[in-house]
Amino acid sequence: MLENRRFLLVRRPQGVPSPDDFSLVREAVPEPAPGGFVVRNHFASLDPAQRGWMDDTPSYMPPIALGTPVRATTVGVVHSSADPAFVPGDWVVGLNALEDFSQVAPGGFTNKVDVDRAGSPAAFLSIMGAVGMTAYFGLTEAGQPKPGDTLLVSGAAGAVGSAVGQIGKIMGCRVIGIAGGQAKCRRLVEVFNFDAAIDYKGKNLEQLSAEIAASAPNGVDVLFENVGGTVLDAELMNLAKYARIILCGLISEYNSPEKLGARNLWQVLVKRATMRGFLVSDYISRFAEGGAQMAEWAAQGRLHMDIDVQEGLENAYAAFMRLFSGANNGKLVLKIA
Amino acid sequence: MLENRRFLLVRRPQGVPSPDDFSLVREAVPEPAPGGFVVRNHFASLDPAQRGWMDDTPSYMPPIALGTPVRATTVGVVHSSADPAFVPGDWVVGLNALEDFSQVAPGGFTNKVDVDRAGSPAAFLSIMGAVGMTAYFGLTEAGQPKPGDTLLVSGAAGAVGSAVGQIGKIMGCRVIGIAGGQAKCRRLVEVFNFDAAIDYKGKNLEQLSAEIAASAPNGVDVLFENVGGTVLDAELMNLAKYARIILCGLISEYNSPEKLGARNLWQVLVKRATMRGFLVSDYISRFAEGGAQMAEWAAQGRLHMDIDVQEGLENAYAAFMRLFSGANNGKLVLKIA
Repeated sequence: MLENRRFLLVRRPQGVPSPDDFSLVREAVPEPAPGGFVVRNHFASLDPAQRGWMDDTPSYMPPIALGTPVRATTVGVVHSSADPAFVPGDWVVGLNALEDFSQVAPGGFTNKVDVDRAGSPAAFLSIMGAVGMTAYFGLTEAGQPKPGDTLLVSGAAGAVGSAVGQIGKIMGCRVIGIAGGQAKCRRLVEVFNFDAAIDYKGKNLEQLSAEIAASAPNGVDVLFENVGGTVLDAELMNLAKYARIILCGLISEYNSPEKLGARNLWQVLVKRATMRGFLVSDYISRFAEGGAQMAEWAAQGRLHMDIDVQEGLENAYAAFMRLFSGANNGKLVLKIA
Repeated sequence: MLENRRFLLVRRPQGVPSPDDFSLVREAVPEPAPGGFVVRNHFASLDPAQRGWMDDTPSYMPPIALGTPVRATTVGVVHSSADPAFVPGDWVVGLNALEDFSQVAPGGFTNKVDVDRAGSPAAFLSIMGAVGMTAYFGLTEAGQPKPGDTLLVSGAAGAVGSAVGQIGKIMGCRVIGIAGGQAKCRRLVEVFNFDAAIDYKGKNLEQLSAEIAASAPNGVDVLFENVGGTVLDAELMNLAKYARIILCGLISEYNSPEKLGARNLWQVLVKRATMRGFLVSDYISRFAEGGAQMAEWAAQGRLHMDIDVQEGLENAYAAFMRLFSGANNGKLVLKIA
C-alpha cells in the first residue's frame, strides 16, 4: 500500500542543523483538496535557502512551521487531481516539500513542464529551475555585465556559481571564480571555462585579498556573491570604481548565530559600489524567457551544470548537509522516486 | 611679519587620533607657483572624511602624506596670484589644508564664490558646500525618494543628516532621525522638522531595532547611512522590501581598527535592498545646480543648517575630535582668520 514519507522539521536548528532537528514520518497519501491536486514528487531541490527557512527570523518567506515537512522545490507527476487543468500523469514543478506526495492548493505556484524538452526531469531543478534562473537574472539584471568587465564569482563551483561564470563568459567578461579546493578550481577552468580560479581554503583575509588582486589587477567590476564572511571581505578589498555587487547568497553565514556580514563595507563607499540583494522569486513571471535562453545555450554546448543526485528521503539530512561541507558537486538534488 | 601656521600630520593615527599625530609649525608665507595663486584661508571644513585620509589604506583619494598639512576644504581670499583669473581679494573655495595660507596649483579645484549671496563665507562649507551637496545629491540621486516613503537618517543631528531630513520632508517623505542624546533628538523634531527622532545612546541592537520598528512599522524605504556599526545593524532589521540605502558615511568605524561593517547584511538580500556607496566628489560638475537649489530652499526658510564654529588653528586637534565625541552641533568649521 502507498504511504507518504515526510521529512519534518521538528526543532529549529541552532547553528549547524542536527539530525534531531528533523523526523521522517509515514502518513497516508493525501487526497486532493477541493480544486487542488496531489503530486508524486520524483526529485527535490536541496538549496542553501532552505537553511534560512528553518529559522524563526524575519525573511522573505514565512519560516517552515515546526511539525511540517521541509519546504523544497520538487519536480514530479500529478497523482490525483480535483483540478481539471492538471491531470494524473502531468509533469509539474513547484514549491512543495521533502515528502513522497505533496498536496497542491488551488492556484498554488506549480507549473506543468515538458520533461522531454529538458532531457531529464531534474533539469527543472537545475539549469531551467530556480538555480539556473538565479544565475541568469542575477547576473544579467542585477549585475549588468559589459564585455570586458572582470566578473568575480564566489561559491563558483556550486550550481549557481558555475552557471554565472559560464553566462559571464558568453557575455564577454573575464571570469574569475573562488572555490574550495584544488579539484574544484581545476574544474572551474577546465569544465566551466573560467579564466582563473582561486582556492580560498587555508587562506586568511590578507592572503585571499592578495590572490584576488593578482588575478584582477584592475579591480572587480561585477561581483556575484554566494558566500559571505572572509571571502566577501577579501573581495571587497578589490572592487573597481562603481562595481556592481549581486548579493545572492551568504552560505558561510547560514549556520552561524554570530554573523560576520561585510566587515569591509567601507570599501563599498569609497568605490561607490552598488550592492543589490537578489531573490529569484522576483523573476518568476520571466522564468519562461530565462528558461528558453538557458536551454538554447545548453543545446549549443555553451552551458553545463553538474547535478549531484543523492538518493532517497531517508537520506535527506545527510544529503542536505553536503551543501555546507562543500561536498556537493554541482546542483544538489534528492531523488525521491 | 606674516607667517604661515600649518597643522601637519606627522604620524598615522592608530584608532583614535592623538595630539602627537599632529604638529603645528610656523613657516614663511609661500609665493604663488607659476600660473597659480596663494589663498589666505578664513574658514576650514572639519569632516569625518578627513579621518580616512589620515590612514594609509586604499581609498578614493591618496592618503595625506606625512609631514604635510591636513587636507581640508577651505574658504578664503586670494592673497597673491600669478593667475590672471584669480586676483587678490577674490573669495574662493577649494580643497586646500589646515593652514593660514595655501598654495593653489594652476588648474587645481578651487572656485570663486559670491559670499554676499550666501550671507557668510562659511555657508560655502555648509549648506552650499560639500556637506550640503552630499545631502542633496546623496538623497535625491542615490536614494530616489518618493512622496510617502519612510526615510530613516542616521547621524541625523549632524550637518549632512539634518540637511537630508529637511530635504526628505520637502520631497514628501516621512522622516525619522537617529541621534545621540535627548537634546539632539528634540532639536531634530523642533528645529529640523523631522517626524520622529530616536536616541541611540545606551541601547543595544535589539532595543534600537525595536524602537525603529515602532517608528517605522511598515519598514524603511530609504535609509541614509552616516554612522555604521550597531546603528546600521538595527536599521537593517527594519528595511522595507526594495529599500534603497545610501552609504554615505560610517563614522562609528573610522577610529576603530576592527571594523564591524554590516553584520545584518543578510537583510539586504532578503529585502532585495540596494545599497549605494556615495561620494559627493562624483557630483562636482553639478555643484552649481545643487547649490542654487539649496540656496533657494534656505531663502524660503525651509532649510536650516547649524554651523559650529571653533576658533583658531592652534585649536585644530580639539576641534576635529568634536566630530567623534558627538559634541559638535551641526557643521563643524574651524575659523582660521
